[in-house]
Amino acid sequence: VVAVEQGGTTACSSLNQGSGAVAWFGVDSDAAIERLRFLRDEVGPVLAEALERSGPVDVVSLAAQGIAMGDDVHMRVQATTNLLLRDLLPHLVRSGRGSDRVGEVADFLSTNHLMFLNVAMAAARALTEWAGEVPDSSVVTSMARNGTTYGVRLPGQLQQWHIAPAPPVQDALYYPGQGPETSAPDIGDSAVLELVGLGGAAAANSPAVAGFLGGKMSDAAAVTANMRRICAGTSTRLRLPVLDNQGTPLGVDVRKVVETGITPAVNTGIVHASDGSGQVGAGVAHAPLACFTKALQDLDHRLSSR
Amino acid sequence: VVAVEQGGTTACSSLNQGSGAVAWFGVDSDAAIERLRFLRDEVGPVLAEALERSGPVDVVSLAAQGIAMGDDVHMRVQATTNLLLRDLLPHLVRSGRGSDRVGEVADFLSTNHLMFLNVAMAAARALTEWAGEVPDSSVVTSMARNGTTYGVRLPGQLQQWHIAPAPPVQDALYYPGQGPETSAPDIGDSAVLELVGLGGAAAANSPAVAGFLGGKMSDAAAVTANMRRICAGTSTRLRLPVLDNQGTPLGVDVRKVVETGITPAVNTGIVHASDGSGQVGAGVAHAPLACFTKALQDLDHRLSSR
Repeated sequence: VVAVEQGGTTACSSLNQGSGAVAWFGVDSDAAIERLRFLRDEVGPVLAEALERSGPVDVVSLAAQGIAMGDDVHMRVQATTNLLLRDLLPHLVRSGRGSDRVGEVADFLSTNHLMFLNVAMAAARALTEWAGEVPDSSVVTSMARNGTTYGVRLPGQLQQWHIAPAPPVQDALYYPGQGPETSAPDIGDSAVLELVGLGGAAAANSPAVAGFLGGKMSDAAAVTANMRRICAGTSTRLRLPVLDNQGTPLGVDVRKVVETGITPAVNTGIVHASDGSGQVGAGVAHAPLACFTKALQDLDHRLSSR
Repeated sequence: VVAVEQGGTTACSSLNQGSGAVAWFGVDSDAAIERLRFLRDEVGPVLAEALERSGPVDVVSLAAQGIAMGDDVHMRVQATTNLLLRDLLPHLVRSGRGSDRVGEVADFLSTNHLMFLNVAMAAARALTEWAGEVPDSSVVTSMARNGTTYGVRLPGQLQQWHIAPAPPVQDALYYPGQGPETSAPDIGDSAVLELVGLGGAAAANSPAVAGFLGGKMSDAAAVTANMRRICAGTSTRLRLPVLDNQGTPLGVDVRKVVETGITPAVNTGIVHASDGSGQVGAGVAHAPLACFTKALQDLDHRLSSR
């Protein structure tokens, strides 16, 4: 459970399943199911005991340190994962001493570079849940895609979803034998990270993201610069060393999106359209403008019909 | 033991003692001695067992990843330390299960950000030892200071030390109540890192080093640029993302040092001059030009007297 103390909101983090043939990429093979059982029966209890020993983990503090170490905390979360593992090390060593499989748990934690991703997503959800309590705000509090539709929400009594067809993932690199014709449209919950100053908002300091965009740090900086043009504010905790410690852009403002025509760019994986074989590539998903236009029109309607 | 497979050279790494009142900063208190006993009796055996289980660790590979995560692998080694701990995690969890104190060992490893420093220094020593086998080379293979004298060596049958008085550490930040008058001249073995593309040579990508130099990444880049003017080559493995993956400057050439008047800048701690109270500050130590002038004159003498 990730909690925002000031706001009283919480969100639950699942355990990241790792890469490869796993259920979160739509794979339902025996190995994928076995991974879920391993997470439930072995990883979960060991981590629960370690967390009980360590006490609460400051997720935003770890993310801030991770950004300074080249993570965007979406596409790349390795440094932040390592910080979490380092902090938990004494508790992991003391945990599950009665278990025969604690070594296997450590094998999994040591090789799953994505472990912090789900924790960061839960933190982002708890934060945007709190932001959802601000009435009449134009700051986007939900952004998600399910392979068919792309939706955004603004705060408000109904928190209505404003949807458009999910776009194909662009600037894509595919696995051998895969391509646009075998790929599902954009899918996933992780775009919530782009709403809280992470992901594309933090790309400027990430060599890994730059590598994906062609190799130059200036390419990654351009992603962050675009996010700055459509965001309401700047993070005071998440800072970008290569931009002389400027904060990451924070809070996508639907008015700025519609005014500029710039929508958030989300670095994301691509899954197969139909055969359940899992990830087939990765690329950049550009949110469809129509969601934001509908959300702004609805906000305008709500405010002007009072 | 760190070994260079191609060269057949080796060097030994002591276990980093951590910060605070410890023997490597000249402190001989009971607590400092107790730390040494703890390292010998508890940390050493657990790490030895973990390393036996893991097999050899590729030190340069970890350093290269650490640089991309903001380490210069001298002043800042935290990311590289975390990578090492992550890789060793499964083996640490399996090691010392019979020991009551393995938890304390994990506490120490988890909170000592400097753990990789001594490993990197040993790797640098093994590499420069190999470089010392190149006859008549003008590349500096030793650079060290002992609080009284500063010395450099070139390859050659005698590998003679060329010395000058150790300078005071400049651009220094002192602990409260401390200052130049209580500080020893420059001291330490770690300058060997600057000879193999680490430390100042890798400063450009390190927000932590930039923070020390005033905060701007351009300040750190200037340190690397100066190293590039006096180095013989460029690393193919250690790359700097913020400089679009240029390699770090590698191999200080005594001819270039004397020609430009630029000597290596070493980010270093400052110890008290006399009272054994340990570290009193940190700053930038500029190697005295006289060592390099003497070394070049000696090389010229050796070559011209054949």
